[in-house]
Amino acid sequence: MIRFNNDYNRAAHPAVLKALEDSAVDSFAGYGTDELCEKAADEVRAAFSCPDAAVHFLVGGTQVNVTAIAAALRPYQSAISPDTGHIHVHETGAVEHTGHKILTVPSQDGKITAEQVAQLGEAYRTSPIREHITQPKLVYISFPTEYGTVYTLRELTEMRAVCDKYGMYLFIDGARLGYGLAASDVTAKDLPRLADMFTMGGTKCGALFGEALVITNAALKPDFRSYIKQNGGMLAKGWLLGLQFDALLRDGLYFDICRRAVKLAMDIRAAFAAKGVPIFVDSPTNQQFVVLDHSQIEALESKYTFEPDHAVSPQHMCVRFCTSWATTDQEAAALIADIAAL
Amino acid sequence: MIRFNNDYNRAAHPAVLKALEDSAVDSFAGYGTDELCEKAADEVRAAFSCPDAAVHFLVGGTQVNVTAIAAALRPYQSAISPDTGHIHVHETGAVEHTGHKILTVPSQDGKITAEQVAQLGEAYRTSPIREHITQPKLVYISFPTEYGTVYTLRELTEMRAVCDKYGMYLFIDGARLGYGLAASDVTAKDLPRLADMFTMGGTKCGALFGEALVITNAALKPDFRSYIKQNGGMLAKGWLLGLQFDALLRDGLYFDICRRAVKLAMDIRAAFAAKGVPIFVDSPTNQQFVVLDHSQIEALESKYTFEPDHAVSPQHMCVRFCTSWATTDQEAAALIADIAAL
Amino acid sequence: MIRFNNDYNRAAHPAVLKALEDSAVDSFAGYGTDELCEKAADEVRAAFSCPDAAVHFLVGGTQVNVTAIAAALRPYQSAISPDTGHIHVHETGAVEHTGHKILTVPSQDGKITAEQVAQLGEAYRTSPIREHITQPKLVYISFPTEYGTVYTLRELTEMRAVCDKYGMYLFIDGARLGYGLAASDVTAKDLPRLADMFTMGGTKCGALFGEALVITNAALKPDFRSYIKQNGGMLAKGWLLGLQFDALLRDGLYFDICRRAVKLAMDIRAAFAAKGVPIFVDSPTNQQFVVLDHSQIEALESKYTFEPDHAVSPQHMCVRFCTSWATTDQEAAALIADIAAL
Amino acid sequence: MIRFNNDYNRAAHPAVLKALEDSAVDSFAGYGTDELCEKAADEVRAAFSCPDAAVHFLVGGTQVNVTAIAAALRPYQSAISPDTGHIHVHETGAVEHTGHKILTVPSQDGKITAEQVAQLGEAYRTSPIREHITQPKLVYISFPTEYGTVYTLRELTEMRAVCDKYGMYLFIDGARLGYGLAASDVTAKDLPRLADMFTMGGTKCGALFGEALVITNAALKPDFRSYIKQNGGMLAKGWLLGLQFDALLRDGLYFDICRRAVKLAMDIRAAFAAKGVPIFVDSPTNQQFVVLDHSQIEALESKYTFEPDHAVSPQHMCVRFCTSWATTDQEAAALIADIAAL
Repeated sequence: MIRFNNDYNRAAHPAVLKALEDSAVDSFAGYGTDELCEKAADEVRAAFSCPDAAVHFLVGGTQVNVTAIAAALRPYQSAISPDTGHIHVHETGAVEHTGHKILTVPSQDGKITAEQVAQLGEAYRTSPIREHITQPKLVYISFPTEYGTVYTLRELTEMRAVCDKYGMYLFIDGARLGYGLAASDVTAKDLPRLADMFTMGGTKCGALFGEALVITNAALKPDFRSYIKQNGGMLAKGWLLGLQFDALLRDGLYFDICRRAVKLAMDIRAAFAAKGVPIFVDSPTNQQFVVLDHSQIEALESKYTFEPDHAVSPQHMCVRFCTSWATTDQEAAALIADIAAL
Repeated sequence: MIRFNNDYNRAAHPAVLKALEDSAVDSFAGYGTDELCEKAADEVRAAFSCPDAAVHFLVGGTQVNVTAIAAALRPYQSAISPDTGHIHVHETGAVEHTGHKILTVPSQDGKITAEQVAQLGEAYRTSPIREHITQPKLVYISFPTEYGTVYTLRELTEMRAVCDKYGMYLFIDGARLGYGLAASDVTAKDLPRLADMFTMGGTKCGALFGEALVITNAALKPDFRSYIKQNGGMLAKGWLLGLQFDALLRDGLYFDICRRAVKLAMDIRAAFAAKGVPIFVDSPTNQQFVVLDHSQIEALESKYTFEPDHAVSPQHMCVRFCTSWATTDQEAAALIADIAAL
Repeated sequence: MIRFNNDYNRAAHPAVLKALEDSAVDSFAGYGTDELCEKAADEVRAAFSCPDAAVHFLVGGTQVNVTAIAAALRPYQSAISPDTGHIHVHETGAVEHTGHKILTVPSQDGKITAEQVAQLGEAYRTSPIREHITQPKLVYISFPTEYGTVYTLRELTEMRAVCDKYGMYLFIDGARLGYGLAASDVTAKDLPRLADMFTMGGTKCGALFGEALVITNAALKPDFRSYIKQNGGMLAKGWLLGLQFDALLRDGLYFDICRRAVKLAMDIRAAFAAKGVPIFVDSPTNQQFVVLDHSQIEALESKYTFEPDHAVSPQHMCVRFCTSWATTDQEAAALIADIAAL
Repeated sequence: MIRFNNDYNRAAHPAVLKALEDSAVDSFAGYGTDELCEKAADEVRAAFSCPDAAVHFLVGGTQVNVTAIAAALRPYQSAISPDTGHIHVHETGAVEHTGHKILTVPSQDGKITAEQVAQLGEAYRTSPIREHITQPKLVYISFPTEYGTVYTLRELTEMRAVCDKYGMYLFIDGARLGYGLAASDVTAKDLPRLADMFTMGGTKCGALFGEALVITNAALKPDFRSYIKQNGGMLAKGWLLGLQFDALLRDGLYFDICRRAVKLAMDIRAAFAAKGVPIFVDSPTNQQFVVLDHSQIEALESKYTFEPDHAVSPQHMCVRFCTSWATTDQEAAALIADIAAL
């Protein structure tokens, strides 16, 4: 079986595995206070041009989302999220578990607008019963979104302006950041001034596991390691995270392998389009949502794994094909040929 | 000014004040372990024909809602609520503050259907990623709703059946229960078998303050007083609650005064309708939502208080008029006359 | 039976009941936004000479403690409390329920020292593993304590200095504040500069219920009403709180009735001492802890209620006698005579 | 430098690294639903003779502790812990962060007794004010303890009996389980009937990271994966955990490497004893606490890392030396020789 079902079905890029192997002969200080984490943090700051940012490495995505959000909010404050946001639909109520409400906003292919956020901000600002409702204080968006779409630089700039106007934090979940940067006019250097916090996902972009959290807002930096530890996110052998990000950031490997995966996804998308298969979402990244009929599904699922998303009609289903850093040219070519043969 | 702005702008029914005065010469055991609470609990059980129910008296509505819901749910479980539900829109995220997600359902004039609940139950039951989402375990509805509407016996019976099918609790917020029972085919005797827990609101129905929580599901009874204390809801002089409910339940006073208030509300509604004022919600209870233009508002607000709800157009606003146990015949007659003169 | 078992077994001082009765003919705005609360808040500010303080009225002690502490702390911060502190031993883990650890310190008759607090502050400041432990950020003490003892002005001044040194808040639980001020060199005017927040208890000092929270630290004031609502502590008919504190603060009634109760307690204490009954705690306030043998207990309990605290030996028990604003001269005299006759 | 400072300063046993390398060519299902996790779970069940146990793999120790405890307790219930327990002193209040109080018990070298637990159980059972205090519902102990000591089979059997008597859960934190089993009469087969839940630590016993949680009490099994996800503990590439435990359990490797480390620790201890160095704790496992003077510390710290624990006198410090699966015979021999030369 050739796996296009998700982008986290393989261990790690060979460079990461090599770095892990090399480290095995050494011993390190615990809990992320080692030299590998320090080096990797410097590399993250360099890659995103944010020399003053705080950088932390955590194991997983839900963990980093909930830790960052809980650290940023006071008890009566809430997070704004697209109704398709990962924190709202796939994290078992983890944010609420820390005591905070999520205010959802209807999304378009996973994206929300600055205007929608402004409406919530204005509603709170002008509410005569403010103490009876939560204060929307943080905007959570994903880049790329759960549907593979990306925000443009203009859209994020508008979002930043609205956040500034209403005193909100902007948190960008970059679990698939590398794939997003390969498909948007937003660059790595833009993120630190747009977001108060953002993540650079490793798990889906070449690492065994690990997410880097970049905090640029000074108000959110103090004692952040206390939040990590309290939320169970402090890895005893923290250097395992440092060495992975070090390996991924050397010579821009992280960005290269994601760009390549996006290229393959575009080829697959073109094959579907050429065949007349409806493209469900106009996604420029490594996740492609297309609508297949059952015979097409049957034809492809004998050889490939892909993920059902939802039924579109009794005869049709929207399904997801993912490429990743691990997808080979041969795998993509095989799929493209089989699509053409549908 | 004559106040129709809400149903909690006056102290308490004279019978309640008299009972309080009478009690002042005596001393009592603390924390609701006194004989007045015991007597009142028996009277609640009698009034609702549920001899085995546990009855607790708490001071306020948000307090009783959050205590009951937090006591019923395990950390990964969530509450289903209408999108207009009090716990969702007017309690500053209190339920989330205890760690639980609220799953909202679009409501029609404050009401939701058994079918909507069934869809959420079925979605969880059949989810292939159940551990990534919360389990909807409790249905929260208000009777009457925040818009004054009531469920019929048939609707509640269907809701009960869906809850049974999916193993959910049904919690009925009866902050205005007396007004609802005066306007529905649901009777006091029906509630205990329909709901796992329900409240009988005192604050808006003749008491100074106080909500009775009736728990009929045996699984929800153990150690409930521990939850009350932990959530700050155990009144040191608990007998102040007992004596109020005792006074209100004597000879059915609670039900009588609410029925009378509903009658006055119906007269006011008829006056608006006769004048051609649009009735925004078809409410059979003490809250009436009507659409007035600015000149009408101006005409009435010099003499009466009422509450703006939302703008319907640049020229029109939906406003709320409330009657209560405290509304006098003269006050209602004056308003009716002034409506006629609009 | 004459009740000396606690100081919350009677309704309220006649002046409070009168004020309540008088208010019954009027209607008020809800949720504490009324003119009575405003007036009472001004009177609190005047009584304690803190014109800039924020003043809020809540119903109960556990409620106000947990709301204030949860509002002051960030998730990784903890509260320091005497091991006998009410928040630690009698509130069903309410503070922990909001997510915060309580660091306990061994107490002497309910009191702790500035030096003990300094040790915890210094331990955190110098800890090499700070992120693995909580930050002690708030000191909780009671005035008077659960054992009736009081801090001296010098002791509180030292505590304040230590809190300043380590960046901690000082929160004084004044559930019985009136009794404490009657028995210490600390005056009402001292409290605002000593504490960041303190409460002026009504429940045990003449009110039906109610605690005033005084916040003097500007950092703790913003959006405090949101915390109250979220924690279920916002009374719909908030004016019921305002009118009580207004009645109690008129002409210093609050302080007078508490001073009188302390005087009676001193007389009772003297009677026990004269009889050779061991005084368990050297308490200058309305709570007296003495050690009685079983025959003495038997002799007194036919006529008086008092509270067992703990067994001192198989033959002796430490018991508590409380006076209050409600204790009459006759009641005290009767007890004193019966003590003499033991 | 030769590191004896802790038992988590090296990557992983070669067998674990080999297994990871081998897995890199394959793709797997996500979130621990893969065949490697299934196989490893079977091996855990076999190793501990508990065919019906639920087995889950989580990344870290704080994470597994807090997830298991929060899943087991209702909001008003608390956990009993030694005052030296890891959850109490080194997890940044993580248990309290989930809403639960920890009741501490004075420990002797990290251990507590069944009698101490019984006292708390009895105090709650007989309390007249039960709703004002938390219910002690879970006993947390470490095996071995934070001081390297172990419970005997008799001690754990007594603890089990007390837990049964008072309806408490027994949770055994086995972060260093392998080292403990090498030094106690408790066997792997005893644990499932003694504990309701226990962990088998990987991080300190040969794995890169990972803790296996074994749940034997049927009441604690339902929907446990929901708790893992909600607490951020569900690793996307869950098979990384499965493959490590699979490698460690093959032919009893886990137990062998821990036994060997304990043997080396005993040799080091003997060397200290022979030199007349005070042994601070009578520890039979891989952690050795000894009291050195500053000249001894200076002599050893040029070549070895070890951890300061606390000052014993101005001239003496208690320090910890740890062996681990990674300690070589040569490293131990060198240290022993240098101790002899002190």
